Amino acid sequence: MNQLNQSFSVRFTYSISFTDGLFDSHNTLLADFLAAQSTEALRKKLLFVIDAGVLAHFPDLGDQIRDYFAGQTNVELVDDLVTVPGGEPAKNDPALVERIIDAVDRYGIDRHSYVVGVGGGSVLDLVGYAAAIAHRGIRHIRIPTTVLSQNDSGIGVKNGVNYRGKKNFLGTFAPPVAVFNDYRFLRTLDERDWRSGMAEAVKVALIKDAPFFDWIEANALALANRNEAAMQYLVYRCAELHMNHIAGGDPFEQGSSRPLDFGHWSAHKLEQLTGFSLRHGEAVAIGMALDCQYAHLLGYLSDEDLNRVLAVLETLGFALYDPALDQDDSAGVLRGLGEFREHLGGRLTILLLRGIGYGEEVNEMDETLLRQAIHLLANRQPTLALD
Amino acid sequence: MNQLNQSFSVRFTYSISFTDGLFDSHNTLLADFLAAQSTEALRKKLLFVIDAGVLAHFPDLGDQIRDYFAGQTNVELVDDLVTVPGGEPAKNDPALVERIIDAVDRYGIDRHSYVVGVGGGSVLDLVGYAAAIAHRGIRHIRIPTTVLSQNDSGIGVKNGVNYRGKKNFLGTFAPPVAVFNDYRFLRTLDERDWRSGMAEAVKVALIKDAPFFDWIEANALALANRNEAAMQYLVYRCAELHMNHIAGGDPFEQGSSRPLDFGHWSAHKLEQLTGFSLRHGEAVAIGMALDCQYAHLLGYLSDEDLNRVLAVLETLGFALYDPALDQDDSAGVLRGLGEFREHLGGRLTILLLRGIGYGEEVNEMDETLLRQAIHLLANRQPTLALD
Repeated sequence: MNQLNQSFSVRFTYSISFTDGLFDSHNTLLADFLAAQSTEALRKKLLFVIDAGVLAHFPDLGDQIRDYFAGQTNVELVDDLVTVPGGEPAKNDPALVERIIDAVDRYGIDRHSYVVGVGGGSVLDLVGYAAAIAHRGIRHIRIPTTVLSQNDSGIGVKNGVNYRGKKNFLGTFAPPVAVFNDYRFLRTLDERDWRSGMAEAVKVALIKDAPFFDWIEANALALANRNEAAMQYLVYRCAELHMNHIAGGDPFEQGSSRPLDFGHWSAHKLEQLTGFSLRHGEAVAIGMALDCQYAHLLGYLSDEDLNRVLAVLETLGFALYDPALDQDDSAGVLRGLGEFREHLGGRLTILLLRGIGYGEEVNEMDETLLRQAIHLLANRQPTLALD
Repeated sequence: MNQLNQSFSVRFTYSISFTDGLFDSHNTLLADFLAAQSTEALRKKLLFVIDAGVLAHFPDLGDQIRDYFAGQTNVELVDDLVTVPGGEPAKNDPALVERIIDAVDRYGIDRHSYVVGVGGGSVLDLVGYAAAIAHRGIRHIRIPTTVLSQNDSGIGVKNGVNYRGKKNFLGTFAPPVAVFNDYRFLRTLDERDWRSGMAEAVKVALIKDAPFFDWIEANALALANRNEAAMQYLVYRCAELHMNHIAGGDPFEQGSSRPLDFGHWSAHKLEQLTGFSLRHGEAVAIGMALDCQYAHLLGYLSDEDLNRVLAVLETLGFALYDPALDQDDSAGVLRGLGEFREHLGGRLTILLLRGIGYGEEVNEMDETLLRQAIHLLANRQPTLALD
């Protein structure tokens, strides 16, 4: 009678569907999913939470959603579509978590009902968090509306909000029950959002899949010029690699290794230093350039590979330097190393590329060499994109 | 390129250790656990959150904890031991969640550090919730100090706080990394807390393990008279059955079935109707008596089995009736059925006993029969406990 040992596994499954015009009346994808999930003769409720930025581009979206569900018998749409601001502000205001929790309470959304988030990554992070803590987890469906959320942040298992300016300080690991990637939402993205979402695709290619990097390289100009077919493949393949990584590794990040955070230690800090005027993907592009330049100085990465990485990023339209990199005081970008270490839990673990498609983890970074890498990026002559 | 399917399992392991005097200087149980967890040459931090009710009985506990960790090199105790009120109030005040989150932030507690909760079930629910949402889940250790928390609420995978008076409206499923059951804490419990924790042992015996019920029946007087050896076995065996249930079933309750909620639909409502003057276990004892009386009226449960159940509860010292059962208006106990249905997610699922050790789920309850069952309990002649 000294000890009992507990051990169990919990299985999580969900699908990511790709479509064009999810709420078109003839598109039965979402309705079919809900019907298939309906195991009992009960009407499940659906509570929608929508990114105000998406509504600005699609003012009829609310009516479309109401029309879509008007004829359906096995689900009951909550008529009050909750709207929240888009972008990082969605994660900075605790009142927005409260607004969603309050709607869950007011409309009697139970654990077998659904909370549906429609928006960019920040809104999905907020909605996923509120859904995860209400009733110990309400089923949630994600409808990502940006490149970044469709290929990366919206399809994973994390959620979170900021706390006193600290990114994702509050959050959980809670997989959605389904993700619906609707290409239609990508058409209205502005240039910067279209582009910045591609940084995570470059990232996952660089650390996991050289042929995908070759493909991005070959299609970089088409992608920069908003070729839709190219973007659809990029989103699909990036999502696929991302999902394989989650399933094959440590989905709830119980260990210390975080390969998907390649380029992110400085990116998080750059976003903060620029007051989020840099988009996440723009910061990640700079972060990857910095860590590749550093890996090259360290002798990890060949001249050719370094040049290919930097040229692809530039062809896609990314700047590889921002003055915030040189904000050289105690609050500068190098402080991001310490914050990243704390976020990981004590031991710094940074992935550096050894070649296109594979990397190696290191546990320290040399600040002198990092400053040298920053200097090289600051003085770099950009690749000329020719089309 | 129409769909990607994700599927993965996450494994959770933890142990429950049983001891007497966890923080005695010669007791290496906790220190050994922390040393074994320490995979890297890093000092992990420990943030303690302690139930004020426990401190009232053990005013030296803080010093004992500080002494215990003073000589240890692989962990660093945060000197500020956070204190929170015990009992249900711990779960009613959102400022207490904030207080713990704030300490996590202030003392740089990362995902590989530990938050340690010491207290009754309510405090552990609060601490577990704060630990689960900070940094997407900090490792948490539970040190339950009541019978109820040592054999049931403190050893499971749930946490939660109340929201606008709604019980466990906010919470997650997040297993601890370890539980330490220290019998010493049980010695200072008042009569009601000593007794009320036994209700969950009766419950789990009734629905899962007839031999354990036989044992409780044979030892009911000893238990009522605070025999320590009997209580230690009761706690151990109840914890074991509880853990087996979690591991063997649906740990994160993705389905609708909730057999461990036997007797709980009315118990939750009775706690609320009495403003929590009824302890949880006292309410569960009444709830079980009610559902057994109902099952008997329905022909599910024999005379003999009904009488054994009611007699054991009475011998343990439980009242089987409370006037709140007859608060016969729209806010009365029968409303608990609807609230329980909503909590489960739409479909009412109630376990009724068919005999000692096994039950059957039903999806509706007859209100007339329930009122009759309440009437029988109100007019019952209690079993005389002879010793």
